[in-house]
Order: sequence, then C-alpha cells, then structure tokens
Amino acid sequence: MTALPSELLTDRYQFTMADSYLAEGTADGRVAFELFVRELPPRRGFLMAAGLAQVVELLVGLQFADESLRYLQSSGTASEALCERLATLRFDGDLHAVPEGTAVAAGEPLLRVEGSRLLCQLVESVLLNQTNFQTLIATKAARLVIAAAGRPVVDFGLRRAHGADAGVLAARAAYLGGCTATATVAAGMLWDIPTVGTMAHSFVMGHGTELAAFEQLLRDKPADAVLLIDTYDTVNGARVAVEAARSTGIRPRGVRLDSGDLDVLSRQVREVLDAGGLEQTAILASGDLDEYLIAGLVESGAPIDSFGVGTALVTSSDAPALGGVYKLVESDGRPVMKMSSGKATLPGRHQVFRNGGPDVIGMSDEELPGRALLEAVLVAGQPVRPLPTLADSRSYAAQELAALPSRTRDLFNPSPLETRLSPQASALKELLT
Amino acid sequence: MTALPSELLTDRYQFTMADSYLAEGTADGRVAFELFVRELPPRRGFLMAAGLAQVVELLVGLQFADESLRYLQSSGTASEALCERLATLRFDGDLHAVPEGTAVAAGEPLLRVEGSRLLCQLVESVLLNQTNFQTLIATKAARLVIAAAGRPVVDFGLRRAHGADAGVLAARAAYLGGCTATATVAAGMLWDIPTVGTMAHSFVMGHGTELAAFEQLLRDKPADAVLLIDTYDTVNGARVAVEAARSTGIRPRGVRLDSGDLDVLSRQVREVLDAGGLEQTAILASGDLDEYLIAGLVESGAPIDSFGVGTALVTSSDAPALGGVYKLVESDGRPVMKMSSGKATLPGRHQVFRNGGPDVIGMSDEELPGRALLEAVLVAGQPVRPLPTLADSRSYAAQELAALPSRTRDLFNPSPLETRLSPQASALKELLT
Repeated sequence: MTALPSELLTDRYQFTMADSYLAEGTADGRVAFELFVRELPPRRGFLMAAGLAQVVELLVGLQFADESLRYLQSSGTASEALCERLATLRFDGDLHAVPEGTAVAAGEPLLRVEGSRLLCQLVESVLLNQTNFQTLIATKAARLVIAAAGRPVVDFGLRRAHGADAGVLAARAAYLGGCTATATVAAGMLWDIPTVGTMAHSFVMGHGTELAAFEQLLRDKPADAVLLIDTYDTVNGARVAVEAARSTGIRPRGVRLDSGDLDVLSRQVREVLDAGGLEQTAILASGDLDEYLIAGLVESGAPIDSFGVGTALVTSSDAPALGGVYKLVESDGRPVMKMSSGKATLPGRHQVFRNGGPDVIGMSDEELPGRALLEAVLVAGQPVRPLPTLADSRSYAAQELAALPSRTRDLFNPSPLETRLSPQASALKELLT
Repeated sequence: MTALPSELLTDRYQFTMADSYLAEGTADGRVAFELFVRELPPRRGFLMAAGLAQVVELLVGLQFADESLRYLQSSGTASEALCERLATLRFDGDLHAVPEGTAVAAGEPLLRVEGSRLLCQLVESVLLNQTNFQTLIATKAARLVIAAAGRPVVDFGLRRAHGADAGVLAARAAYLGGCTATATVAAGMLWDIPTVGTMAHSFVMGHGTELAAFEQLLRDKPADAVLLIDTYDTVNGARVAVEAARSTGIRPRGVRLDSGDLDVLSRQVREVLDAGGLEQTAILASGDLDEYLIAGLVESGAPIDSFGVGTALVTSSDAPALGGVYKLVESDGRPVMKMSSGKATLPGRHQVFRNGGPDVIGMSDEELPGRALLEAVLVAGQPVRPLPTLADSRSYAAQELAALPSRTRDLFNPSPLETRLSPQASALKELLT
C-alpha cells in the first residue's frame, strides 16, 4: 500500500497556526493540552481507554521526511521558515496518560501532552485519531463481553472495518477489551493476538456437496475444524455435519451458524448434534450480532457457546465515533479555559484520583487519596519505562471491568461513572469563569 | 507507525481453506467472485463506487514477505506446503470493475475477480475492507454535496476517523464524492487534493485576547485567513473580527462558526459583518453537521457559504458500515449459487447494462443495449490501461450524480436505483434454484 507519511496525519490548520507561532515568537512557549471526552456515547456508562501504545510510537517516531517538507512548502501549507524548523523537530515533550484498559468517565483526561506550543499543537490530530478509535472499539468490545456473560467473543470484522489500519487496530482494541481472538491475521502477527478461522460459504459451494466440503475440512484440520452449516439449510447442515463426522471418524470442534433466527436454529442444531453423538461439538454464532442481540440470546438460553462479531464491533455501529477533544489547559504557566456554549473546558493540568467513591478530578500537583490514574509515560521525549504488553493490559482491563458497579456496566440504561472536582480544581474554574 | 503487512490483511479462514484446496488439488481451479452490496444502507437510493485505485494497488503489489511467511508457519496458520506456494504467489488473475464514481444499485457487482481458487479466495478480505469503506464514504459525501445545494463541503474528519488509513481514505473518497477539499494534509500530498485550514480554539485561547489572535492570523495569512469566532461568544466574536479587520486593514476571507444554533448565529454574524464592511467575508459553518442538518440550514436560508463536516462524513455516522459481500459465482466453468435464507446469490459472471431505464443485470457474455458498467482493469495481473486520475474520477462522479433521477437523490425517502435481470440471467438462476 502507499506509504502514509504519518507526520502529515494532521489538519492543515496546525501548520497555519504553527506559522503564526513562529512569526510572533511564541512557538517555543510551554503549553499543556489534555485529551478527554466531553460526553459518553449513548448507552455507555464508561469508556475503556485504548490506543496509548500507538500514540507513543507515533510521538517517539515523529520526524518530517524530506518529501513531506517539500510538499508542505510547495503547496503553501507551511512557510520555508517553518519547514526548516520542522526538519529537526522531534517529540521532546512530556506525556502523561491513563494506562490502556482503564475505565474512565466523561471529562477525565486520557492523555496530557506538555511541551512547546509548536509541537503540542501539531500532534493534536493524530493523537485524537488514534485515541478516539481504539477507545471506541475497546469500549464496544467490553460491552460485547459483558453481554456474552462468559462465552468467548471473537472479532470477525476486518471486511467491514474502515480501512487497513482500522482492521488491525480494531482487532487490537477488541482483544484489549476482552475478546478472546481475532480472524485478522495481520493483527495476530503484529501483537501476538490469537487468531481463529472457520470456513466460508464459497468453500462449501466450491465442493459440489456440503458433505464433501465438511469431510475435506475435517480431514485437513482434524483437531479444530469448525463447519459452516448454513450455506443451504442450517438444520440439514447440522445433519450433514453428523454424517461427515461418521464417515471420517473425526468430530468437528464446532459448527457455525451465520444467518437466520439464531435462537431457534441453535436449539434445533444442538438437538441434531447431540442425537448424532456430537455433544462436544460447540456452536458458534455470527451474522450481524451486537451486544443487544447477544444479551437476548444469552437470556433466552440459546445453546450458543461463542459469538463471532464483525460490523458492530469494528465500527461500534450504534455509536460509530468517539468525540474526544484535545484542549489547551495551560499556556506559559497560566491556566486557560474555553467558554463556547456547551463546550467549556477545565483550566489547568489535572490528575484523576480513584478511591472507591466518585473519581476526583484534581490538579496535577495535588495529592489526594486514592490511585492517580494519569501516569508519566514520556519525559522530555524519553520513555519512563516500557509500556505493558497487550496481554498485561488486557488482564488489567478485565480487572477494571470487574471492578465497575453493575449499574455502570448495564448495557441499556447505565449509571455513568461519576466524577467530582476537587475544591482546588473547582476554585480555579470559578476564578476564570 | 508499525508497518502493516498488507498481504496478511485477511481472515484466518482464507489460509485454512487454502490449505484444503492445496491438499485436495483444487487450488489451481479457475473461479470467479463478484463483490456487491445486497441492500442499500438506510435512506440511500444509490451507492457511489470507490476504492478501486487502492484495490488495484494491493492486487498488483501482492507479495508475501519472508517475515509474514515465518509467522504463518510458526503460528500454525498455514502449512509449510502452503507457505512455499505463497512465497511465489502474485496476482495473475483478471479484475473487472465499475469505474470509481459510478452510481450503483443494490445487487450490482462493483468488482469481479477471476483466477485460481487459491488466489481469489485469499484476497477477499482486503478487497471488501477497501471497497466497503471508500464506497461508504463517497456515498455519504455525495449526500452531503446534494444537501449543500452548490455550497462547498469540506472534510474536517481526521480526528474522528477510524485510524490513519481511514483518515486519508475518507478524504480521498469525500473528494471523489464531490467535497471540494480536506483538512487532512497527508491526503493532500498523496492524491493532490486541495487542503484547507482555519484556526483552532487553542490559538485564540493562547493569545490572551480574541482580538490579538485575529490580528495575528490576518497579518500572517492576509490572503486567506478564516477566523474562528466562537471561542467565547459567537456574535461578539464577529464584532472582534470586524475590529481586527479595521486595525490591520486586512479583510478576513471568512469566519467560522463551530458551535451553537448555526441558523440563528449565522444570521446575526452576517449582520455584524455586513455592518462592519465585511460583506465579502464568507461564513463557514461546522460542528457535528450532517446532510440532514445541512439540508435544514439551506432550506431555512441561513446565510452560510460553506460547510465543514467531520464525524458524519468520515464515519458515515447514520450508516457506519457497508455490507458488501464477495461471493463465488463460478467454479471451474460452472455457475454456482448460495441459497442461505435471505442471502441467496446470483450464479454466473455478470455485466450491468445502463440504458436509461432500470439497469439490466445480464451475463458477462451477453451483449445488451446500453453502457456496460464493468470494465476490464487487470488481465492476467497486468493493467489494461492507467486508471483515471482522482480529479477525472471526481468529474465523472459529478456527472453520475447529476444524471440520477431526483427521487433517487432524495436524502430522506429515496426511490432506489432500479435493476432487473436479463432473461438469460433470470433463466440461469431459475435453473439452479
């Protein structure tokens, strides 16, 4: 694929402003920005923070290629003076962030970036792009996992994801959020995520008969064949699966239902399998599932052992965007705030303290009881310590999820995670209003 | 960013099936797949085909890197025999496609891929991933352009797009669909798309006073400054813009409203600007706009000159996924079809003929009146001719849009583009049912 110049993953106005900062001599002033979500998407009681690993990678790797600089200058996007400055620009600022997998509330900073005005402004767009997306998907995955109530949920979404990056990052965020595996091979390779695969309808259609297709797959994958039984007629497909198990002497690990009324069909299929001696063969359901449908299937007692989810997971289809924002909170040591109607921000640098009750949003130099959620990740551009592995972040995410009140985990009408301002944060806000 | 092994942008089951095809000796059998959308998303009367350029790039560049092969084998995803085969695999098949920018109906093939079973099956996931997304966004862009009724619409969506690839591909598809520009600089460089930029709230907040910020930007960008006037109070911001124009002697090219009641505010701002001698200063509106809100603003006569659209455009928020499918239609010269309930496919290789009335879906070897929409793009892996430039595709897309019946362009309750089967296609379907 065309190589993407990641240093240009930014909005043009960042260069417009950078040119002004240079011209007026304020480019090197120290500023702080915080990234947070003003309002939770509909039906969400919490967000699961994700994307930090990619944010760190982008910041540490920030560098303007010659070709990018030539484009910026020839297109009039950046002045020659700015391009000269960009040629040696590296991320030498500080980054604080909540660890991936942390459950966060509306208004709580996920990231804080501090450094020169020029630098912090330029990275806004890509930090939002990466954090918004993975947080959106990790949150959706957590909801699916809640709905499945212990049954594995796997990511089948590559074909409906918004491009290549979305495909693999959705797989990553889904795994972080509690999914057990992905079908996307590239994500398996990049982050050591377990991958799973069954068979496509085309495989059945290409074999003349369903029986021939099932026999072939059982022989080729005797340990873990999952037979797709809905190409022609699902219940008959289950009978054919039994027949194939008999003729080959190999029991399928599972059968997959990908269409129709999954509640009714799974019961019929279970009967056919059990009667045919395939009590150990699991039923995997897929086909436009989401957390609401899964919760319904689980509640009705449909004998489904695991769920494959595509579109709803990788696009977070009922809430397909996260409105994270990146707001200036301090400029040359002075706290600042924005007051647009409905879009006011909290001035100053913040820390979030979690201590059993509502989270307390305090100032970064306060010492309040509880766990401080924002941790130093980069100091003067250098990593403070290695980031946790994805597997470790996934374990932490599971703890975070388990620690949430059940009313916050509710899928339909949750009580959102609560926050309050510390007296100091509150006083500063009043002072500037 | 981590380099993405694009040859592994596929679902694991593709390798599972490939192994079976190798084992049974059918990997080299010739097959045909067609990519189409079963049902239009809600409120859509047509789709605008997009993503072909990326599809061609991926197919022509298909090659398995050593590292990818090592992963496939060590993870048990592919056998040693399959990996040996993959090491020399290139796309040597045929690709037919409707040109980017073509208006298409449900059920009409956007692509047809022919070649060995092994090859055609492996590329399924990435072809769907790329075609679904860009078609989704080009269609959304076309709807926004219809709503704006001649006023420019620009893409502001990078920060809400689903990752890096989504950010730039959305900008590309938006431009194809009729948007006039993007804020995403990388997309400007990659495809020569005009970029635009204004200023952020942080620029205003970092300057102590709004007046100082506006004066600075006017001096730095005298030809094309667009002042963001809603940081504190929008109407007062318009007064400050007038004051800045007076103090600097430079008229802003535009002002931008990014929050509040855009209908009411745009009228108040227009009055302030006109009274202040800034009759030529345009009003750009943004802030969670979509085609429905834009149509309302246009209908009410709000004096808005152009629209910036982010989230709704780059995520197609009211319909965030396109359900394109890739179905086997021919196997070893024999037409095949799938009959799952509600998911039946048309057997055989098709062509679409457009001749004024409903499109006719016929067989690929039929010669029917009208324009044949599917064109040969790759033959035996080689490009038949250079693809059109994005600018040319955009002009063609505009013609396609203009040629649609107004009832099909309707944003709320459209009459979908109609199709019928040719007698031959119909007879083949009956024969196999």
